[in-house]
Amino acid sequence: MTLSAAAPRRRDPVADATAPERAEALALLTGARHAALAFADPKDGTPGISRIAFAFDPEAGMLTLVAGLAAHEPALRAEPACAVMLGEVGAKGDPMTHPRLMVKARAEFVPAEAAERPGLRARWLARNPKAKVYIDLPDFSFVRLHPVSGVLNGGFARAFRLTGEDLMP
Amino acid sequence: MTLSAAAPRRRDPVADATAPERAEALALLTGARHAALAFADPKDGTPGISRIAFAFDPEAGMLTLVAGLAAHEPALRAEPACAVMLGEVGAKGDPMTHPRLMVKARAEFVPAEAAERPGLRARWLARNPKAKVYIDLPDFSFVRLHPVSGVLNGGFARAFRLTGEDLMP
Repeated sequence: MTLSAAAPRRRDPVADATAPERAEALALLTGARHAALAFADPKDGTPGISRIAFAFDPEAGMLTLVAGLAAHEPALRAEPACAVMLGEVGAKGDPMTHPRLMVKARAEFVPAEAAERPGLRARWLARNPKAKVYIDLPDFSFVRLHPVSGVLNGGFARAFRLTGEDLMP
Repeated sequence: MTLSAAAPRRRDPVADATAPERAEALALLTGARHAALAFADPKDGTPGISRIAFAFDPEAGMLTLVAGLAAHEPALRAEPACAVMLGEVGAKGDPMTHPRLMVKARAEFVPAEAAERPGLRARWLARNPKAKVYIDLPDFSFVRLHPVSGVLNGGFARAFRLTGEDLMP
């Protein structure tokens, strides 16, 4: 064994996820009712951020419902590349030790006439009955968030890389 | 009075903040111990997102402490434009009705030898005593997040625009 002269000065802090970490990531996805969304501002390309309503749909996976008035609505239509973070911070302890999942994703607006919309709508309403007030307004849209890759961070020095497939139902 | 043919089809959903909303935004800043950070991925410019430790320093304002291993560390060094979201989601009710503050910001790394660092360090440790384990490690840096503009969202149809000055101590 020889030492490589080109060895990186710092080790990669992120390990590939194994089954327990994949299960932990899916539990975070399944439990989340909201998330933080990072997007590119269509005005100048700078980062923007919003809170989004969130569900992990058993067929479509990561899903949000977006109002036309939301800052990220025109942003995601102009540039579908985005990132989502979920995981609650508990009331106690160092906030940075609480697990969170960061997912790079690609947004896809679900057309009103799409064959999958009635199923998405029914399952969303089953979880969020109050959404019936606005779910059918013409400027509200379901947006699928197709996962590209993820990182599960379970606290200091505990980070795991996930594939897009790892983050689908 | 005449109707303008160029009138926008949708009203601006965001109103200018007045004193009560500015006070509400400052209360969110002062109370936050963590935040979500949107940044540009230096590899390809796509949006990235991280949870960050956060304090509203009484002199410097929005502040975080960043580890060299964090994904956003090289990102903010390459591109200081970023966005921060803070505000807790309570255990009850619709998560989208809980107030949150979104701030467009510009990151500035505080050099280890900067005159302001001892004060930032002392005040950070007063709030986070456990940080003494890592605060002086060579790859940890304080990063000031200079506010450019903000939006306070207090729930559906309750959004207020803030200036960078509104979001300083």
